[in-house]
Amino acid sequence: MPEFLKVITPREASVRFAQAYTPRPRGTERVSLRQAYRRVLAADVVAPEDLPEFDKSTVDGYAVRAADRPGSLQVIGEVEMGRPPEFAIRLGEAARIPTGGMLPEGADAVIMLEDTRLRDERTVEATRGTVQGENVIRRAEDVSRGAVVLHQGTRLRPQDVGLLAGIGVVEVEVFLQPRVAVLATGDEIIPPDRRPAPGQVRDINTYTISALVQQEGGVPQIYEIIPDDRERLLGTLQAARATSDLVLVSGGSSVGEKDAVGWAINAMGKPGIIVHGVNIKPGKPTILGVVDGTPVIGLPGHPVSGMVIFDVFVRDVLRAQTGRTPPRDLGRIVQARMARRVPAAGGREDYVRVTLEEREGTLWAIPQLGKSGIITTMTRADGLVVVPPGQGGVAEGEEVAVELFEP
Amino acid sequence: MPEFLKVITPREASVRFAQAYTPRPRGTERVSLRQAYRRVLAADVVAPEDLPEFDKSTVDGYAVRAADRPGSLQVIGEVEMGRPPEFAIRLGEAARIPTGGMLPEGADAVIMLEDTRLRDERTVEATRGTVQGENVIRRAEDVSRGAVVLHQGTRLRPQDVGLLAGIGVVEVEVFLQPRVAVLATGDEIIPPDRRPAPGQVRDINTYTISALVQQEGGVPQIYEIIPDDRERLLGTLQAARATSDLVLVSGGSSVGEKDAVGWAINAMGKPGIIVHGVNIKPGKPTILGVVDGTPVIGLPGHPVSGMVIFDVFVRDVLRAQTGRTPPRDLGRIVQARMARRVPAAGGREDYVRVTLEEREGTLWAIPQLGKSGIITTMTRADGLVVVPPGQGGVAEGEEVAVELFEP
Repeated sequence: MPEFLKVITPREASVRFAQAYTPRPRGTERVSLRQAYRRVLAADVVAPEDLPEFDKSTVDGYAVRAADRPGSLQVIGEVEMGRPPEFAIRLGEAARIPTGGMLPEGADAVIMLEDTRLRDERTVEATRGTVQGENVIRRAEDVSRGAVVLHQGTRLRPQDVGLLAGIGVVEVEVFLQPRVAVLATGDEIIPPDRRPAPGQVRDINTYTISALVQQEGGVPQIYEIIPDDRERLLGTLQAARATSDLVLVSGGSSVGEKDAVGWAINAMGKPGIIVHGVNIKPGKPTILGVVDGTPVIGLPGHPVSGMVIFDVFVRDVLRAQTGRTPPRDLGRIVQARMARRVPAAGGREDYVRVTLEEREGTLWAIPQLGKSGIITTMTRADGLVVVPPGQGGVAEGEEVAVELFEP
Repeated sequence: MPEFLKVITPREASVRFAQAYTPRPRGTERVSLRQAYRRVLAADVVAPEDLPEFDKSTVDGYAVRAADRPGSLQVIGEVEMGRPPEFAIRLGEAARIPTGGMLPEGADAVIMLEDTRLRDERTVEATRGTVQGENVIRRAEDVSRGAVVLHQGTRLRPQDVGLLAGIGVVEVEVFLQPRVAVLATGDEIIPPDRRPAPGQVRDINTYTISALVQQEGGVPQIYEIIPDDRERLLGTLQAARATSDLVLVSGGSSVGEKDAVGWAINAMGKPGIIVHGVNIKPGKPTILGVVDGTPVIGLPGHPVSGMVIFDVFVRDVLRAQTGRTPPRDLGRIVQARMARRVPAAGGREDYVRVTLEEREGTLWAIPQLGKSGIITTMTRADGLVVVPPGQGGVAEGEEVAVELFEP
């Protein structure tokens, strides 16, 4: 039996690979706030000042002293937006104030316009009392100077970018985006713009894999298709490794293809192949390798297998290379009931593509059965269900966790 | 009471706005496959050919006739990758075939290498029989010529782009990305790179709103901050409207700011303001307007309110402008238990920011209470819970649906 058929479990493969390679970002760069959305913070952000820097009103109304009872108040002025008021409020006094306006000295609450009646230009009647701090955002209530407001490893969301703007952080230190070489190999593979002769197929993996790389915040570096020529494969992989943080090569890893990728990874440098062959369906002929500190991963040639293996082995490595704190699975996992029995896959972890359908309030997972060469099982599907080996599969109606595909 | 305080419910506001404006994409363009990821298909994609175009093996093994019993077979050749075999298989014969190899004429199954023993160069023993079609992907099994493989309105995922490559569609018709003008107005607003004087605040909304626009596939067009000068506001809004598909202006819509945005929208053209003031917390001073077929929306100046109103009114409009078929909420909504009682907000729909925490298998939603001027209530939060008006709020431990923020 060829060596690579002595396959190991996905968990064991991950453990061995983690012992051989620890993913980390390649470095950092400074970007302006307008470029910061979705980038990953390379350092904690400490607020250089308070937010806000003054007590301000959250409503349109009158700045007052909370100690005043309901009744008549003398209107001594009007707060203008963007300017500090040049007067102070004493007991029995009030000043018109707009939403966002700065509280005058002495004032400690704002009474809403709706709770007042203007008697004349200089007198307003408060129809109710106020409590201290009512309708006021106090200085530093949002952020205190010196506080850590965002942590290293945060992938910046819209509100995070907004907060940075609010505290005047207009340039931010982020991790460099990992450069990921995406290669396909095989004499039968042709570019999508060519018409296949009998026996040839168009390259799908370059397109699916580079989109997956973008999804995780990596920058795909796309190479031309490499024919079944060991020296050329080796040369291209070496060149790719020299300028990338991760090398993903699909095809050329199974026996029929004479295991060219396995040969090349070992020929490239040390330690070379860490795992060759995983007990997973689809995706058995997976190679996890490391060459001089750069991971080189051989993905199966079948498009579906390549995508599943990306999910199982590559996604977390790439995510760690981006520097992102592992996100919680919230929202990526939904519970559903399996609509049809799925038998266990002969001792292998089986990644079943499913389409989700809601019927009478229950979410059903409908397996898209089909071989792993069938890309439409992926395009019809909403996500994946892992069927563990050796437990008789999943029964009809059994509850399963569906890992949703991301857009 | 000023006219805009006669607020209506969010649902009523949406209905009125939908009667005044129907969002649709502005046009289409052709992009190459490498630019197609995450774009929205402007037409159904019909497969121009079968995929695959020939029967092929899914394993490394021997191409055989399923009618053969287990036993010795004569090896008459070897299928090479990417080339049509030049021989046919008769009963009692076999040919070595690699994964992805084209089946020779006459063969209708493939027996896996593991199920064979090679006797000599010309004889192999099959240790088991096969069934018709075993380990074979048949011609057109993935896609049949003429079939609709992807529908108009699909936002292309990695697997969708891969499928297009597989069927040779190297250019694709997609909807133009909506151009969204993002403006902020107010004398107190300064750019984030400036140090605020007393009473001034830095512009947050331009950053949060333009990131939200990008999230939905729109192209933000960012304008300089407009001071409280009606003519200048009107001029800038007119210019923005002329070159955008959607105009979003924050601030300047509440009474204290003299409702400059409301005035400008009505001055710009017909029909002008459709909704002014919505019974929602936060976000009451929202304006939904239409001018000569372009939506012009006045967002509240408070950053949290602006983001909530984007979610409630703008997101769906923008999504429809991208041409995308409304996505299912799968994964955007998770169920959790409210960790603390949240009182109803005096007859208004209340959008409460919550942080999610898992404790002993239960997901808890912890409300981030705080005024809508407090941006950190958003940066600490994982999502939003809608508390309906007038039902006594949400009890501690009550199950709620949390709409997750997207990255």
